[in-house]
Amino acid sequence: MNETIMNAIQDDYPEEFAWCYGCGRLNKEGHHFRTKWNGEETVTLYKPDPAHKAIPGFVYGGLIASLIDCHGTGSASLALHRKNGFEPGSGEEPPRFVTASLHVDFVKPTPEGIVLKAVGHVEEIHPKKFKVKVEVFADDSICATGEVTAVVMPQSFGK
Amino acid sequence: MNETIMNAIQDDYPEEFAWCYGCGRLNKEGHHFRTKWNGEETVTLYKPDPAHKAIPGFVYGGLIASLIDCHGTGSASLALHRKNGFEPGSGEEPPRFVTASLHVDFVKPTPEGIVLKAVGHVEEIHPKKFKVKVEVFADDSICATGEVTAVVMPQSFGK
Repeated sequence: MNETIMNAIQDDYPEEFAWCYGCGRLNKEGHHFRTKWNGEETVTLYKPDPAHKAIPGFVYGGLIASLIDCHGTGSASLALHRKNGFEPGSGEEPPRFVTASLHVDFVKPTPEGIVLKAVGHVEEIHPKKFKVKVEVFADDSICATGEVTAVVMPQSFGK
Repeated sequence: MNETIMNAIQDDYPEEFAWCYGCGRLNKEGHHFRTKWNGEETVTLYKPDPAHKAIPGFVYGGLIASLIDCHGTGSASLALHRKNGFEPGSGEEPPRFVTASLHVDFVKPTPEGIVLKAVGHVEEIHPKKFKVKVEVFADDSICATGEVTAVVMPQSFGK
């Protein structure tokens, strides 16, 4: 897979929201998931670290859940940003979403050593609430499917 | 919270299944989640690393999903092991489960710097398939709820 991620939404998150262990560009120890548009779909690519195993040869489910989680919030952010008239790289700060719920179905064991590709389809279910359906591929094989309900981070978040 | 985990089920997993990034005792870089009985409930305690943040002050959802995931498979293993007449520490190898599906509802932001407590209730829905309902507490406050459907690892897993 030679695909690359240019103009990821996470590159444009405001600094105070760029510390997420999954997708924050400022979290030195994190995964640095990066999510972009590919037409009407959203895409995140990630090669798990050898430590991220379930049993030798296969990727840890919690890592796949993490990928789906951040792919979901990133996809929702891409969608609302586009609805507002912006694309990543435009210089505008995108809206930051948090996960209300996460569901993952593990379809089959995910082989190690391969770049995983999460593909998302976003649906607005409320002006501040988006549903993202996600498929995770290893090469051309679906290993997991998921659904994220993401909501715009309330100003009161954590206060 | 002064509670500790003695006789965790993961301490008894066969070596070849003890590499999980979430709960494998042999994975040096992993979380080392450890799950025990507390009466009819199951318990996992875990203090997230400072890097495991969503935004400063609050724990990353993917880490909570990982905790629920391994707590679910560990709880299912405890339950089937007990059904088979064994407790952790008995010297018998417990059955190893894999996750079929994982659901997490994030109830409220999970504060950093606190030992999280996952509490599980296990229900057998088939001799090889168990459902585990999970609540995650920070101090006495529920931050997330979840449900894991765990199945006995098929002998063909990954083959």
